[in-house]
Amino acid sequence: MTTPQPLRVGMVGYAFMGAAHSHAWRTAPRFFDLPLAPELTAMAGRNEESVRAAAGKYGWASIETDWRRLIERDDIDLIDICTPGNTHAEIAIAALEAGKHVLCEKPLANSVEEAEKMTLVAKAAAERGVLSMCGFSYRRTPALALAKRMVDDGRLGEIRHVRAQYLQDWLSDAEAPLTWRLDKSKSGSGSLGDIGAHSIDAAQWITGLNITGVSALLETFVKERPVGGDFVGLGGHGGADGPRGPVTVDDAALFTARFEAKHDGGADAGSRATGASGPIGIFEATRFALGRKNAMRLELNGTKGSIAFDFEDMNSLQFYDSALEPDAGFRKIMVTEPSHPYAANWWPTGHGLGYEHGFTHQVVDLVTAIGAGEQPSPSFADALQVQKVLAAVEASADNASRWQNI
Amino acid sequence: MTTPQPLRVGMVGYAFMGAAHSHAWRTAPRFFDLPLAPELTAMAGRNEESVRAAAGKYGWASIETDWRRLIERDDIDLIDICTPGNTHAEIAIAALEAGKHVLCEKPLANSVEEAEKMTLVAKAAAERGVLSMCGFSYRRTPALALAKRMVDDGRLGEIRHVRAQYLQDWLSDAEAPLTWRLDKSKSGSGSLGDIGAHSIDAAQWITGLNITGVSALLETFVKERPVGGDFVGLGGHGGADGPRGPVTVDDAALFTARFEAKHDGGADAGSRATGASGPIGIFEATRFALGRKNAMRLELNGTKGSIAFDFEDMNSLQFYDSALEPDAGFRKIMVTEPSHPYAANWWPTGHGLGYEHGFTHQVVDLVTAIGAGEQPSPSFADALQVQKVLAAVEASADNASRWQNI
Amino acid sequence: MTTPQPLRVGMVGYAFMGAAHSHAWRTAPRFFDLPLAPELTAMAGRNEESVRAAAGKYGWASIETDWRRLIERDDIDLIDICTPGNTHAEIAIAALEAGKHVLCEKPLANSVEEAEKMTLVAKAAAERGVLSMCGFSYRRTPALALAKRMVDDGRLGEIRHVRAQYLQDWLSDAEAPLTWRLDKSKSGSGSLGDIGAHSIDAAQWITGLNITGVSALLETFVKERPVGGDFVGLGGHGGADGPRGPVTVDDAALFTARFEAKHDGGADAGSRATGASGPIGIFEATRFALGRKNAMRLELNGTKGSIAFDFEDMNSLQFYDSALEPDAGFRKIMVTEPSHPYAANWWPTGHGLGYEHGFTHQVVDLVTAIGAGEQPSPSFADALQVQKVLAAVEASADNASRWQNI
Amino acid sequence: MTTPQPLRVGMVGYAFMGAAHSHAWRTAPRFFDLPLAPELTAMAGRNEESVRAAAGKYGWASIETDWRRLIERDDIDLIDICTPGNTHAEIAIAALEAGKHVLCEKPLANSVEEAEKMTLVAKAAAERGVLSMCGFSYRRTPALALAKRMVDDGRLGEIRHVRAQYLQDWLSDAEAPLTWRLDKSKSGSGSLGDIGAHSIDAAQWITGLNITGVSALLETFVKERPVGGDFVGLGGHGGADGPRGPVTVDDAALFTARFEAKHDGGADAGSRATGASGPIGIFEATRFALGRKNAMRLELNGTKGSIAFDFEDMNSLQFYDSALEPDAGFRKIMVTEPSHPYAANWWPTGHGLGYEHGFTHQVVDLVTAIGAGEQPSPSFADALQVQKVLAAVEASADNASRWQNI
Repeated sequence: MTTPQPLRVGMVGYAFMGAAHSHAWRTAPRFFDLPLAPELTAMAGRNEESVRAAAGKYGWASIETDWRRLIERDDIDLIDICTPGNTHAEIAIAALEAGKHVLCEKPLANSVEEAEKMTLVAKAAAERGVLSMCGFSYRRTPALALAKRMVDDGRLGEIRHVRAQYLQDWLSDAEAPLTWRLDKSKSGSGSLGDIGAHSIDAAQWITGLNITGVSALLETFVKERPVGGDFVGLGGHGGADGPRGPVTVDDAALFTARFEAKHDGGADAGSRATGASGPIGIFEATRFALGRKNAMRLELNGTKGSIAFDFEDMNSLQFYDSALEPDAGFRKIMVTEPSHPYAANWWPTGHGLGYEHGFTHQVVDLVTAIGAGEQPSPSFADALQVQKVLAAVEASADNASRWQNI
Repeated sequence: MTTPQPLRVGMVGYAFMGAAHSHAWRTAPRFFDLPLAPELTAMAGRNEESVRAAAGKYGWASIETDWRRLIERDDIDLIDICTPGNTHAEIAIAALEAGKHVLCEKPLANSVEEAEKMTLVAKAAAERGVLSMCGFSYRRTPALALAKRMVDDGRLGEIRHVRAQYLQDWLSDAEAPLTWRLDKSKSGSGSLGDIGAHSIDAAQWITGLNITGVSALLETFVKERPVGGDFVGLGGHGGADGPRGPVTVDDAALFTARFEAKHDGGADAGSRATGASGPIGIFEATRFALGRKNAMRLELNGTKGSIAFDFEDMNSLQFYDSALEPDAGFRKIMVTEPSHPYAANWWPTGHGLGYEHGFTHQVVDLVTAIGAGEQPSPSFADALQVQKVLAAVEASADNASRWQNI
Repeated sequence: MTTPQPLRVGMVGYAFMGAAHSHAWRTAPRFFDLPLAPELTAMAGRNEESVRAAAGKYGWASIETDWRRLIERDDIDLIDICTPGNTHAEIAIAALEAGKHVLCEKPLANSVEEAEKMTLVAKAAAERGVLSMCGFSYRRTPALALAKRMVDDGRLGEIRHVRAQYLQDWLSDAEAPLTWRLDKSKSGSGSLGDIGAHSIDAAQWITGLNITGVSALLETFVKERPVGGDFVGLGGHGGADGPRGPVTVDDAALFTARFEAKHDGGADAGSRATGASGPIGIFEATRFALGRKNAMRLELNGTKGSIAFDFEDMNSLQFYDSALEPDAGFRKIMVTEPSHPYAANWWPTGHGLGYEHGFTHQVVDLVTAIGAGEQPSPSFADALQVQKVLAAVEASADNASRWQNI
Repeated sequence: MTTPQPLRVGMVGYAFMGAAHSHAWRTAPRFFDLPLAPELTAMAGRNEESVRAAAGKYGWASIETDWRRLIERDDIDLIDICTPGNTHAEIAIAALEAGKHVLCEKPLANSVEEAEKMTLVAKAAAERGVLSMCGFSYRRTPALALAKRMVDDGRLGEIRHVRAQYLQDWLSDAEAPLTWRLDKSKSGSGSLGDIGAHSIDAAQWITGLNITGVSALLETFVKERPVGGDFVGLGGHGGADGPRGPVTVDDAALFTARFEAKHDGGADAGSRATGASGPIGIFEATRFALGRKNAMRLELNGTKGSIAFDFEDMNSLQFYDSALEPDAGFRKIMVTEPSHPYAANWWPTGHGLGYEHGFTHQVVDLVTAIGAGEQPSPSFADALQVQKVLAAVEASADNASRWQNI
């Protein structure tokens, strides 16, 4: 067994996602056999003191205070982008053009235009062997990966219903402070892009079908919030008597959707045009569902079976198989058997995994694809399709919920 | 204790709802103290042989083969209408004008116009002491009655989200036969009116707020079905090779909604006009959610708490109380304590009730209201409001999901 | 179709069980085709005023103030015994010897000796066509009846583990009053006979195997309670300052058990003697499990599959089928399909039943057996076997938990 | 902020537990501020090739092929023992006497005698500042740590019932091979010591009360298994036609227990003698509960509240608070709020943890205790108490389940 070549990583950003990605880069090679050996070469951030502390904490060998320096360095093979969405396009394009592989956090960008540019650059880079991936990490939750396998294997038959909810409650308190996530210029949108984007990507990926149109309703329940305040983590509580600023993003996003029909051959165009033959979908994303902490839920109903998932019980997948009727029922599969996605490399049956394992699996799949010289999934093109759905949702909501084709 | 006066009932129809209502009339006085003593005086139906058999089975003292005879008879005080929706208006109006109290199955009618006429007649009758009620029996499920009490008591604060699903799967088989429920001329609509109507009524009743507008998507998955066939109950399986006919109703109905703002006083009109200050809602009704048998689900998220209900576990209500944070969590209240709605008249704590108890409680509440000379709930006016939402859903779906005010 | 002959019932007792049995006698013929037509002929109780009120409420045609009069009457075919356990033997023996069929509430008696006498009399009566049944009504819960069918069909393979809990909490309050259920002379035992007896019967019936030995621990947490007090239902709250009396029964019963080996033929005796080859069991019954209202739970693990049941969610049965591995999981079967026990006579799929339906089904099965001239199940002999287990549990608990063969 | 001093670790063993402990040593300092900086200095194992591969995989800087060398080395501060139970005593005693801190996997030893010796040595070492801990890692599951906090805070009142199950199914297949875990000379016992020990430790730790006596039943369902065979992980499948060897441990362990009364003062001895005033417990451990993968369950019922936990849903704790009656119910607390044990150092609310986090937390608590010069918990003395319960269970089972005091 020869020692694998190194894959030298430079990371931009060091907040919530920075911690998660750092753990993944450190941990993936300890549990999985990878074709390349990730090295935590450099971390970049604007504030030298903060980035130095973070790099020490998370195990990075060096720091930079300008992300452009990472791209200039010869000893870096991959750029991992963990910054807010308004910076993704510039960094990713520069990195790809400099011949660095890229892992970019989701959503890919804050607009369809940016995402389209990034996708073009990524396609060109891929032809030169420079690869890129967008970080829709929920695809690496074992239960959702099993769901995709089951759909691909035809165990649900033709999908009729897609039912997706992403429910959190950390903004339910009207005195929670006004952070960058509530500022449209930085975050692009609110619940819609932050969490709804995960539901959209998961639904399209698992069904293998794109959304072709939507009708939407957006709502902002709390229109002003305290600025400054004593903010820790996602939630927190602002100063009650201090100044307030406007919330410029959605607090909740609701939409109905149609998906393209299954790709059976040439006759597809017709049914796609009418939208009549694919599944229908209903989506909800909110950070005001009091009591729901991270309820990323997905339910699919097909002609042969159904699946249901809730991230609050992430180690299991509910499956209904109509072939077992009349003694059928949703069965709770613990997705920890050796044959289940990712499971054989961890613990014995029944010993569950946690949130961060999705990021570790993401690194595993990314490094495996780079080692094989193949396109990682999801590509920037996949992420662009999500971006188009986000834009259509906003357009419909701005136009009295009128149907918006994509 | 004096013996209560009789309340002599004449029932029209004897299928699924006829069996449920008969049981309720027989059982209510055995467990509850009623101001009037129901008597199962006469049952009407067109086929003499069938109605005679049903009357014997369910305990009715006499039969008629024309519902008009029930209304002519002096020995009948109340008409209980258990026929399809296209017959409700004629029977109910005739009964009320003849001075008979009326219990009318839901939906109240097959059109807003009919429902408006019925409501006018009902209001006029009420002034003469002749009372009427529409059979939205889910209001009498103890868990939903407790939900209403909690909302009324302010335990959820201001409601922000209404999330309603009514999921069944008995039409999932594309070979299930074409019955009257799939014929728009008889049933009015499909999932929307059959089961979605229950969700709409429950949501408006529990929040105390009317829906002011909707955006909708309707879908018919299976456009033709076998006619004739060997039909039993709701489901069944038609003849595979025989003739087929068109399904003329929706198989699934999805819609988003806005509710009026809370009634605080005079300033209400403004916020109602914009629709901005009330809860937002998301509704789904389908008979194609494979594996969901009678999942009538309702979740409300407010500023102080949340509730969640699923009829498949009908004896419990989930409640989240934010005052208990950080050790809060949805708690599963078994709605069988003596202080819970209807529970003290049944069994000890923890000994659950079933589907038909809703009908028994409906009789209890109706007879109690009649005894007191008060308007029963839901009134025809309440049911008319549901009818308006159904109509708006269809109008929006016919108009590219465009927002439809009510 | 000819009209069935009447089955004229005389009931002794009119409390909790009296209400449940009355409802069952009234309701069974409305939903099931019975070979005989039950009539609620007479109710007996010592207090004339009370029994008259109860008879009116529950629909009995006449009353008696001495149960012996019921047995003397020519117009009564069956005696339904709903009194405390210390009276069962006398009434049941007199009735059977007078040629009346008997339905006797559980536990059959307060001692093995009484139960043995009753069983002898019942066997002799059966030879004359006079039939008897003991009211272990949980056998008629559809989910448990389905469990038995699955075990009989071999879907679990050989059973290895029996895990039974019956958890309630209505005595958790140390100030709840001292009622007859806490007086050993009337009730025979506490949790053990009141609720543990149901678990024992269900476990033996579903596995088809008798318990052959036990090791037990009994505990009384609250040794004195207020006498008198304001008692309603099972729970309530006594007077804090008034006199107290001793609790003479167990508050909780815990025991381990061995079952006989499966009956495969002649070689059985050996393994039964050692007790080594049958399932092992673990049982708990308590009225002090705060928060558990009527958690009658049973789990069986076999060589091929497992089932799990909890009466607090009584309309479903959990089933694990190892043939579906590695994507197996406990599946929640809603026991409401037309092919499920008792379900076809009630409501459409997914519309659940309640506690009292077990009693209605008990009447259905009893009347069906009487109509066919066959032994109803459970027989007095089956109930005697339960009584022997109860006695062995007490004997082991009195002897430092030493193993007690049965 | 000064750089912490190193804590140089030497690990013995490199199988399942070796992987888990290695991950914990690497990860703990990345998420928690520790007073000492763990270093993965050396790993020991007998097979040089295997240990070299494992050390490379898991990140250890050097290897030894004799654990005694680890103890001799000056550059090692702590010995982490991850070998089978029959080797624990020799290694731990040698390490402690050489002045190395010790983390020893559970169960502490294979006999009470060994455990007593180890405890004596550990107490003597502690006086010299050399500290030791036994690896009952379930104490570090956040939900169980919260359970202990709630009990300590009096939120359950006096505990009456302890109900513990540890259910797995990986030996359910009678053809699974005969591994060292089924050989009493190496493993000490079967389900009892492997998994039952966790339940015993958790129950005693959370209640703060020791078990004072037990009555037990042990069973071996499959008495012979294939030797050799193609064994992977815990389960697997042996060769059907090859030779077989005897299983010398229990497959399942069932026991009832009494706990000491709450420590209120001097009068304690009396109630301990009678055993009457403490909680009663019921325990089950098995690897034959088909469908249960790692169901480590614990339920406590007190005079004021109850808790329930199942490791298959490890990120939540069910809590019943009787003060909320009559609208009480078990509420599902997601143990991911910043105020919950360990949670603030990980992810936002609702983003769950996995099995291995217990080991990371164990390292955190151990290093924190060493840094402070305080006794880590659980001490060897705590583990000795567990060992005494295991021995009493075996003694009772060997003596017809007769009560065995501890």
